[in-house]
Amino acid sequence: MQPIKEYCGIFGIYNHPEAAHLTYLGLFALQHRGQESAGIVSTDGNDVYSHSGEGLVADVFADRPVLKALKGSIAIGHNRYSTTGSSGLQNVQPLLAKLKDGPIAIAHNGNLINSGALRKKFEAEGSIFQSTTDSEVILHLIARSRKKSLVQRIVDACKQLRGAYCLTVLTPDKLIAVRDPNGFRPLALGKMHSTWLAASESCAFDLIGADYIRDVLPGEMIVIDKSGFQSFMFAEPSKITQCIFEYVYFSRPDSRIFGDFVDKTRRRFGKNLAIENPSDADIVISVPDSSNTAALGYAQKSGLKYEIGLIRNHYIGRTFIHPTQQGRDLNVRLKYNAVGGVIKDRKIVIVEDSIVRGTTLRKLTTLLRKSGAKEVHVRVSCPPVRFPCFYGMDFPTPDELVASGRTVEEVRDILRADSLHYISQQKMLESAPSEYGGYCRACFDGKYPLPIENSLEKQMHETGHHVLKV
Amino acid sequence: MQPIKEYCGIFGIYNHPEAAHLTYLGLFALQHRGQESAGIVSTDGNDVYSHSGEGLVADVFADRPVLKALKGSIAIGHNRYSTTGSSGLQNVQPLLAKLKDGPIAIAHNGNLINSGALRKKFEAEGSIFQSTTDSEVILHLIARSRKKSLVQRIVDACKQLRGAYCLTVLTPDKLIAVRDPNGFRPLALGKMHSTWLAASESCAFDLIGADYIRDVLPGEMIVIDKSGFQSFMFAEPSKITQCIFEYVYFSRPDSRIFGDFVDKTRRRFGKNLAIENPSDADIVISVPDSSNTAALGYAQKSGLKYEIGLIRNHYIGRTFIHPTQQGRDLNVRLKYNAVGGVIKDRKIVIVEDSIVRGTTLRKLTTLLRKSGAKEVHVRVSCPPVRFPCFYGMDFPTPDELVASGRTVEEVRDILRADSLHYISQQKMLESAPSEYGGYCRACFDGKYPLPIENSLEKQMHETGHHVLKV
Amino acid sequence: MQPIKEYCGIFGIYNHPEAAHLTYLGLFALQHRGQESAGIVSTDGNDVYSHSGEGLVADVFADRPVLKALKGSIAIGHNRYSTTGSSGLQNVQPLLAKLKDGPIAIAHNGNLINSGALRKKFEAEGSIFQSTTDSEVILHLIARSRKKSLVQRIVDACKQLRGAYCLTVLTPDKLIAVRDPNGFRPLALGKMHSTWLAASESCAFDLIGADYIRDVLPGEMIVIDKSGFQSFMFAEPSKITQCIFEYVYFSRPDSRIFGDFVDKTRRRFGKNLAIENPSDADIVISVPDSSNTAALGYAQKSGLKYEIGLIRNHYIGRTFIHPTQQGRDLNVRLKYNAVGGVIKDRKIVIVEDSIVRGTTLRKLTTLLRKSGAKEVHVRVSCPPVRFPCFYGMDFPTPDELVASGRTVEEVRDILRADSLHYISQQKMLESAPSEYGGYCRACFDGKYPLPIENSLEKQMHETGHHVLKV
Amino acid sequence: MQPIKEYCGIFGIYNHPEAAHLTYLGLFALQHRGQESAGIVSTDGNDVYSHSGEGLVADVFADRPVLKALKGSIAIGHNRYSTTGSSGLQNVQPLLAKLKDGPIAIAHNGNLINSGALRKKFEAEGSIFQSTTDSEVILHLIARSRKKSLVQRIVDACKQLRGAYCLTVLTPDKLIAVRDPNGFRPLALGKMHSTWLAASESCAFDLIGADYIRDVLPGEMIVIDKSGFQSFMFAEPSKITQCIFEYVYFSRPDSRIFGDFVDKTRRRFGKNLAIENPSDADIVISVPDSSNTAALGYAQKSGLKYEIGLIRNHYIGRTFIHPTQQGRDLNVRLKYNAVGGVIKDRKIVIVEDSIVRGTTLRKLTTLLRKSGAKEVHVRVSCPPVRFPCFYGMDFPTPDELVASGRTVEEVRDILRADSLHYISQQKMLESAPSEYGGYCRACFDGKYPLPIENSLEKQMHETGHHVLKV
Repeated sequence: MQPIKEYCGIFGIYNHPEAAHLTYLGLFALQHRGQESAGIVSTDGNDVYSHSGEGLVADVFADRPVLKALKGSIAIGHNRYSTTGSSGLQNVQPLLAKLKDGPIAIAHNGNLINSGALRKKFEAEGSIFQSTTDSEVILHLIARSRKKSLVQRIVDACKQLRGAYCLTVLTPDKLIAVRDPNGFRPLALGKMHSTWLAASESCAFDLIGADYIRDVLPGEMIVIDKSGFQSFMFAEPSKITQCIFEYVYFSRPDSRIFGDFVDKTRRRFGKNLAIENPSDADIVISVPDSSNTAALGYAQKSGLKYEIGLIRNHYIGRTFIHPTQQGRDLNVRLKYNAVGGVIKDRKIVIVEDSIVRGTTLRKLTTLLRKSGAKEVHVRVSCPPVRFPCFYGMDFPTPDELVASGRTVEEVRDILRADSLHYISQQKMLESAPSEYGGYCRACFDGKYPLPIENSLEKQMHETGHHVLKV
Repeated sequence: MQPIKEYCGIFGIYNHPEAAHLTYLGLFALQHRGQESAGIVSTDGNDVYSHSGEGLVADVFADRPVLKALKGSIAIGHNRYSTTGSSGLQNVQPLLAKLKDGPIAIAHNGNLINSGALRKKFEAEGSIFQSTTDSEVILHLIARSRKKSLVQRIVDACKQLRGAYCLTVLTPDKLIAVRDPNGFRPLALGKMHSTWLAASESCAFDLIGADYIRDVLPGEMIVIDKSGFQSFMFAEPSKITQCIFEYVYFSRPDSRIFGDFVDKTRRRFGKNLAIENPSDADIVISVPDSSNTAALGYAQKSGLKYEIGLIRNHYIGRTFIHPTQQGRDLNVRLKYNAVGGVIKDRKIVIVEDSIVRGTTLRKLTTLLRKSGAKEVHVRVSCPPVRFPCFYGMDFPTPDELVASGRTVEEVRDILRADSLHYISQQKMLESAPSEYGGYCRACFDGKYPLPIENSLEKQMHETGHHVLKV
Repeated sequence: MQPIKEYCGIFGIYNHPEAAHLTYLGLFALQHRGQESAGIVSTDGNDVYSHSGEGLVADVFADRPVLKALKGSIAIGHNRYSTTGSSGLQNVQPLLAKLKDGPIAIAHNGNLINSGALRKKFEAEGSIFQSTTDSEVILHLIARSRKKSLVQRIVDACKQLRGAYCLTVLTPDKLIAVRDPNGFRPLALGKMHSTWLAASESCAFDLIGADYIRDVLPGEMIVIDKSGFQSFMFAEPSKITQCIFEYVYFSRPDSRIFGDFVDKTRRRFGKNLAIENPSDADIVISVPDSSNTAALGYAQKSGLKYEIGLIRNHYIGRTFIHPTQQGRDLNVRLKYNAVGGVIKDRKIVIVEDSIVRGTTLRKLTTLLRKSGAKEVHVRVSCPPVRFPCFYGMDFPTPDELVASGRTVEEVRDILRADSLHYISQQKMLESAPSEYGGYCRACFDGKYPLPIENSLEKQMHETGHHVLKV
Repeated sequence: MQPIKEYCGIFGIYNHPEAAHLTYLGLFALQHRGQESAGIVSTDGNDVYSHSGEGLVADVFADRPVLKALKGSIAIGHNRYSTTGSSGLQNVQPLLAKLKDGPIAIAHNGNLINSGALRKKFEAEGSIFQSTTDSEVILHLIARSRKKSLVQRIVDACKQLRGAYCLTVLTPDKLIAVRDPNGFRPLALGKMHSTWLAASESCAFDLIGADYIRDVLPGEMIVIDKSGFQSFMFAEPSKITQCIFEYVYFSRPDSRIFGDFVDKTRRRFGKNLAIENPSDADIVISVPDSSNTAALGYAQKSGLKYEIGLIRNHYIGRTFIHPTQQGRDLNVRLKYNAVGGVIKDRKIVIVEDSIVRGTTLRKLTTLLRKSGAKEVHVRVSCPPVRFPCFYGMDFPTPDELVASGRTVEEVRDILRADSLHYISQQKMLESAPSEYGGYCRACFDGKYPLPIENSLEKQMHETGHHVLKV
């Protein structure tokens, strides 16, 4: 059983007559954070109700009766990347269990680095595990705590966790939101009349019509119940190491995380990229939609014309049946087509937000040349990704990271680009807000803010991970 | 959360290259024991593989890839009656968990009567429960045992169980079959070349082409692994109280349980019913298909002509959409039609295997009269069912048992029958084989062979149970 | 494109607020006449509404909204055996088209023998065909008729048809029922208050709660509309040649066709079979459920004991995934199991209603011997089937009919039976009522009551037909 | 039965071993032209094979076996907007029928204006109609033609058609492509080695890897078979009236139609819009993705900054369950979110390609204001849409066209915009290429290039049409 690393989106809501339905909306807004499965748990104070399934939110909850059955005014939800484990054990979220206090449900975004050791210990003492997720140890820590109240037991549990974790926790009468002391992943607090909300990104509040209040702070636990809103820092202050990749690629441009709009930070990446790495091309294009803003920033700062040179086909679904005789570029062509009238006879700067495996970009440079581009210059709004992430970002193994162990020139050659330049780590950090603290950039330089279990690191190198982005 | 009582069919196989596929066949043969969900867990010695779902076996495993993915030469399976609990916790079987020894899977047929107390205790000690089934305590007992080997831990667990349980247990290298000391439910042992099998009823072996060897004995545990077949009695000898209702209604007529063919015992019920309760009617008919054999026995002993007076429609599926203006008898008419040419102007004896709620039978007597029957005499091949079952048979609450608190004459009146007679308890017991010991008949006389937890009994009276048979 | 021969069930209803819903019930009762697809067309006097699909009635109309959308108080329906043709053209029934008078829908049971010639002629004159069914020519004949009223045009069309056809026809204000002058297939007339019904078999009326009035007569057309019920003979009197196979196998035992209950006729087959072909066996068993009644008749007349020696599994659905290593008898074992307690050490008479390919019966005799039968004697309640049917019964090609070109002794040998006897043609005819006229028995003796187009016969021999019964 | 107007995409391919599979790719590239159903017909020279269904191309053909079953080296395909008609008759495309010559299939994009009269005439003469589409009369015209060869009969049919029609026609040995003499809809010719292709837009060739050769000309028929490629003008030269709306909104920006890339024309719309209607706003934003190019053109010409102010959510599927208590703007918010960092405190120009009902745009202006926009100025890259289209563009009835019967100022008020300006008809025409001839702009000025049947126009006003765009 391998540790499963996953991107996720989490959500929680307290005191709304349509709690599950708004959770559904929230998960829909957070769909980009996890597209393989979705789940909601709600409670009416007595019973808990749960539904989850594989697929997009709109598919998993495609029937009104399913949502109706999720009764009550408190709910949490979870979107997930990643597949069912190789063993027969199921990895569903929110995790739901019955403790002596009654039912509890947890939605977890992030990755724990000491779950292996904890799990081993608990199994030796007679505990049963139902999933292969690292998240399940949180439930066991809570169940085993000797503290008196449930909240105290959750604090007790969190103090023993190490790694990245944003949690929304549901009990029959409470919604609890937790963010780890390092603050790896974002978690926002929202409000709408007398309804409280928590979500991985603030875009979930926009859809619902709720207001963004502030971020849940690193090391903060927020407990909301009948007696009101209560906040406290459950852990010693720690060095803040927010995940810069949330700004680079993962969060939505219309979200507000880590103290600023994603869109604004991403544009500064593009501008600083242009300052460091100008080009004498004719036009700037993006890889829609993820690098649109960075490309726009690059164009604005460089003075080059911004153009829409690639069209993205949004009809592509889960399955596509390939003809046996088509070329190997079909996958990329299904998703992107070059706009002949824009590309032909032009020198192109293509701005990409990040390069992981490099396979898609290599096919895009080919597509652009076939469409008549005279030159293709690649500019990247983050430094070369060379190291695995142990805090919840699902990169492939270093072997598959095109920049791992290669010079920029070697990568350029693989990408068949006329030139290739990355933003520097320093300029990237200058572009991001420092309001809440610093950033983890271990994927660029391998300097991990929390030491990694040897076995974990070893496994990461040995096993095939799911790839987020090609 | 209410205790869920359920009929089930279980299966296990050791050492066959298509273990999961034969489990699928076995579950198909045991489909009558549980039609609401089905599940299989297999192992190839390293990993375990699992698939389960709601619906009939042939639907849950409708895709070859699903069966192919259940790799390995050891497998167990489970058919289940009953619905998802009211809480959000899922009741899937076989139960699958990871213990310190590795993965384990359990399929359970029967009902435990001390699971509530055990559960309470374990939760207080920090254990997490994932389902509302009584079966989950078995896993916790195994996980918590201090015994050295896994087999010893399973023995340790079983010694603490009270109630009805037949188990098939899978580990990466073993198949284990267990039957409780009272022997409430049947469990048969089969063989085919070097492949061992266990199944709730021997009809599963017939379909596969395997031989019935013998019953697993009350209180016996059978462990099959590389070192061969090993059997031992894990419990002190106890009074044998096999469930007579397996003969009356539940098991298939072509199965061999408790020491004889179901068909033969069922025919003796019919014959003895005729001896005790003759009739001067013209013909004997059955309620197809469950009382066919008893009716035949009645006809043979009484000398009356056996006729097929009711046709059963087998196309009826799960869902049927009722017109708004149709009479209330449509449900019965969808399932049965009277054969006019047989019924008209005749005095009819209709032999029924058992009467639970009586609603179907009441509609059938009406249907027969509408089709021209001069008289309708009901003969029943088991005594009046008046008490709930705590050992795995899912009767409705006493309030809904038509014979509970009513005289036979009052029931006759409700059924609109010209006469109504039941077989006596004594004659019924004379009809059943005594090779392995006695029978539980608590549903007839309320004398429970194992004392019931007060809370359990209370709940049984308060809650609405799923009804097996109307 | 090959002629497609099919069994079918048809239904029609006039003047009921839930016309489509009762049609759904009627088709459900007629499910045995065609299980591959189902369709309903209804009308509210203005528009027509239609829904059809592949699968059982209860699946095709599994959603209440689908039935709700079939508005109006007149409806017809159709059940069909047979698959989509090899060409891309769709064969849906009821056939629906827009003529100059407005929409019309037709459900057809039977097989036309002059459709090929008509089709060729119409195509040459510029007509378009949408299906490969013979039924579509009926629509063209109606559309092309120069008669003034629609009813006259339908009469005009029917006069040009040759072969077997029972029709229910829907127009925005009429229900029309037609039976061909030979009367090959059954068609019954029913009534319930002021609602008129027509159905292939009377069992459809029983389910709905309507009364069977009488058969639609050979050569009769019944027109029901606002002005009431109107009947006339549209064709010259012809020799009546009802299909004896409807009694032998196809119709339900609780239906009343051709002047008597199917069940009663079928029992007389069994009795006369016993008179002609006694046996000194110990017991008589049937192949459930189709030969139950014939076996009972055989047992009663012969004085041998009737027993239930084979159990039929009704859970078997459309698809079943076969393990790669199971023996070839699995298909039969999935459907039937021998009751060991009945069969062992006995001399068995197994009564079968008919033998077509003989493959199932051969496997059953083997199954019975494996279960300990000392002798297996086969008795068949119709003569050997040796010739194809051109009037709607979908036998395989003569090559595949086990009795074609073989002596009874050769067939016995193939079936591995200790003895084999068929009822004689004369005794069979004596068993059937003669109230309405005679019977077609071309499948036994090759004497076709209507001459067959050469090309049709040729095709029948060349092409692979769908097999009804194995 | 109402005339059904529909957008469509059509495709055809000749001489490729995976003809159906490439048709599937082609339809996928043309998905934007019709998302409600898809169909493919193929032929191997003997039989024809067909599959169609409701939904997106990738869903209708989600199974490899379905595509495999569409055998042969010639195929045509069709994407369709619009639902099943209110009557029970099915509107499937490609239309498939059997004529005396054998099977024929037709895919039609456009709308005929004389189909009603033709249909009436044919029905009176005994023809049967199977659908309510105008396209079916084409089949009847071909079937009824007295010309000798099939090609001549198709020419004969086309000469009698009036209105908009691009056709791909399949016979067992031919692919035929036809474009009406007015050239309303686009149709392109492609080639790949020895394979010929036809498609509504050239983007279909890009995906397959085929080359765009040229447009099929107005009034041209192209016949491709074993004897090669043959082209001729089947009609007298007519005034060319290409649909300008294909450039404005409907075709993909990467397609080449009517003599130029859509993208280039669309950008000229934006530039000319800026020349005619400048603004002193801070930034220019588009309504993604349809007005991206026009907005970019506007920004470039006006010198204002182009920004991404609205994010479009592409996860939204067919169904979405609305909470009962959410505001009425949820539909728009599900699809778009404003990027706070871009919008706040800015004066915004929002460029829209066209305004039909205006409901979406009204909600977007509100959304922008809520996100802090100081002013919202709307600029539209086509003139006000005020009249229905009878040539295949599915506008709502005039009542629902926001600009119909209103001044620009009144529309501005409804849209809650600070200013509203449209491009002039003259500037729009200047922006489009004149290589092939002129344009139809009847939707702007009501001057219909082909006179409309009165009844048709009447129906258009009376009936509710499907709305393309809100």
